[in-house]
Amino acid sequence: MTHARFTLDAKSGGARRGSLHLDHGPVQTPAFMPVGTAATVKGLTPRDLVEAHTQIVLANTYHLWLRPGGELIAKAGGLHRFMHWDGPILTDSGGFQVFSLQERRTLDDDGVTFRSHLDGSTHRFTPENVIAFQEALGVDVAMVLDVCVKLPASRPEVAESVRLTTAWARRSLDAWSASSTAVFAIVQGGLDDELRERSARELVDMNFPGYAIGGLSVGESREEMERTARRTAALLPAEKPRYLMGVGTVRDLLTAIDCGIDMFDCVYPTRCGRNGRAMTRSGEFAIRNAAYTTDLEPVDATCDCYVCTTFTRAYLAHLFRSNEMLGPRLLSYHNVYLLNALMRDARAAIEAGAWAGFRDAVLTGLRGEPSDET
Amino acid sequence: MTHARFTLDAKSGGARRGSLHLDHGPVQTPAFMPVGTAATVKGLTPRDLVEAHTQIVLANTYHLWLRPGGELIAKAGGLHRFMHWDGPILTDSGGFQVFSLQERRTLDDDGVTFRSHLDGSTHRFTPENVIAFQEALGVDVAMVLDVCVKLPASRPEVAESVRLTTAWARRSLDAWSASSTAVFAIVQGGLDDELRERSARELVDMNFPGYAIGGLSVGESREEMERTARRTAALLPAEKPRYLMGVGTVRDLLTAIDCGIDMFDCVYPTRCGRNGRAMTRSGEFAIRNAAYTTDLEPVDATCDCYVCTTFTRAYLAHLFRSNEMLGPRLLSYHNVYLLNALMRDARAAIEAGAWAGFRDAVLTGLRGEPSDET
Repeated sequence: MTHARFTLDAKSGGARRGSLHLDHGPVQTPAFMPVGTAATVKGLTPRDLVEAHTQIVLANTYHLWLRPGGELIAKAGGLHRFMHWDGPILTDSGGFQVFSLQERRTLDDDGVTFRSHLDGSTHRFTPENVIAFQEALGVDVAMVLDVCVKLPASRPEVAESVRLTTAWARRSLDAWSASSTAVFAIVQGGLDDELRERSARELVDMNFPGYAIGGLSVGESREEMERTARRTAALLPAEKPRYLMGVGTVRDLLTAIDCGIDMFDCVYPTRCGRNGRAMTRSGEFAIRNAAYTTDLEPVDATCDCYVCTTFTRAYLAHLFRSNEMLGPRLLSYHNVYLLNALMRDARAAIEAGAWAGFRDAVLTGLRGEPSDET
Repeated sequence: MTHARFTLDAKSGGARRGSLHLDHGPVQTPAFMPVGTAATVKGLTPRDLVEAHTQIVLANTYHLWLRPGGELIAKAGGLHRFMHWDGPILTDSGGFQVFSLQERRTLDDDGVTFRSHLDGSTHRFTPENVIAFQEALGVDVAMVLDVCVKLPASRPEVAESVRLTTAWARRSLDAWSASSTAVFAIVQGGLDDELRERSARELVDMNFPGYAIGGLSVGESREEMERTARRTAALLPAEKPRYLMGVGTVRDLLTAIDCGIDMFDCVYPTRCGRNGRAMTRSGEFAIRNAAYTTDLEPVDATCDCYVCTTFTRAYLAHLFRSNEMLGPRLLSYHNVYLLNALMRDARAAIEAGAWAGFRDAVLTGLRGEPSDET
């Protein structure tokens, strides 16, 4: 398989520095993927994303399937042309969203039937039609349809999700037309070491172009996440890209890189941005707090983005207090820029063999805790 | 007075082509001023405004007085630095807003006391403190505090508003520190020819750097507006800039230019943009309409803005139907760009002595009616 060729260029401690070659260009890893669920990274244009040094964007099969639908996107020339993003795109398979619907879906061995959260209409995902949909979008990386369980879950439940996820991964490979779209598998298994190992082993045997770790960052403790991510990453082939789904705080990104993971996605920076939560190298803060209404410093004095080199905290605080849409836009832009810059600096540190020092310096500089906004 | 030096460079029919020289640079007229009520043109950055060929921005004394307040803006280095807009700024005096409060304000000869729409706190505007406030913001053009009446109104009511507006204009001139901020007067008088004439004559006698026509575009018919604007404009000195407040549809702008007016402001293009109403050279349309969900043409095929050269109607329709904030942002940008481009073309037509043909060609191309969104 030549899809999604990955080269491991350097290592430093557990951290990896790589290059992932996709149909729409290379991605330097570690890389953060801003989330453009509905074919838009909320509030930002493709130009903004490029300016913020975004390399690859994530979109969601579930949402695009329901609206505007694959037919329109194909007619528009594919997802890249539809949203006018020329860089790589990875689409999630919709597994996570469908299994979040709880009362609205019915699982069987062949697939999953669900009702739309938009209009209640009935739809069905199978491993095959989800791959076909993503290939029709023309994305660079498609994810297999996986079976997610809500934690806490009984061991038999988690084991069953692993069994089906493996079976569906095999069917996904068979369904894959080996187009320019690469297909990544998703390791499940909850917080259970043995099930994670089983899931990883079965998927690795199928020789996918890349592997994601799913089912984490869903409410478990940071320690649980780190332990499972680290153990699972170690089970994955060194020569393939590793993707931890749903991670996007500064602290979690550093931890995940330390676990040997290469790619990450999360709505965190844009959701925080919309809600007035500023991410900085020294921690997060709520821009609406009274202290910032007269603060003439930039959001993050160490950041060289358009927002930080142009506007004050007082101006952003004014925008948010006035419910002006420019506030969410500017803070989303800054937060995405910040994570992309963090990844850039992480890559440089790994190349320089200085990962541990970089990681500790950043972690030491962080004050307070991230919010529960993921 | 050397403030706001105005040169009349060409005439074609009733239309005027001029240059207004303000502290932060020249404004080529006819010019449309996008409205940045709360120190932000909703959804757009200063960079966007420059890219959309915006020459001058309007902000509102009433809103900025209440939030974030003059003290903070002065501390931030003035309104230009606070919102990071380097071009000219004109601020409305707050008269229109205060008199719209109806139950929340008390008028006396000295000024007007009102309660904030935000928190009910009590404030007082006088001709003097409104000029001082705008000078403290460091804006290029300050408007005098005027007395607006809601139409329909009795003749004595309108006459009284003219009397007070004249008296307050004189006090505004006295209060003006002759800083780099120019001060424009506002002609009132409703739809009454004699009162308009009285108001204009009294204000022209005071030799202001510029004159606005207030009290129009407030619900009267298009014919009434045109008749009053045309008659009032003819009463104003040819060598001073003329500003018609509250006008921002393609049709009204062309009419107003035809009346010999040079400057205009309106929330129309940005409010329409937020609400999914696209302005084009061939009329307006609601982007949410079913027809556009599969329309792969640009919003306006004759427009060379970023939005029209990048995205399809189908993509914008998708954004609006998905309640994605990128939709309002993109359509606001396009609508502002469109009006600025219309003014550019109007200026060229006047320079070429071809105003009437240009006006008629644009008016003939317009289909349907603008919305009631002003």
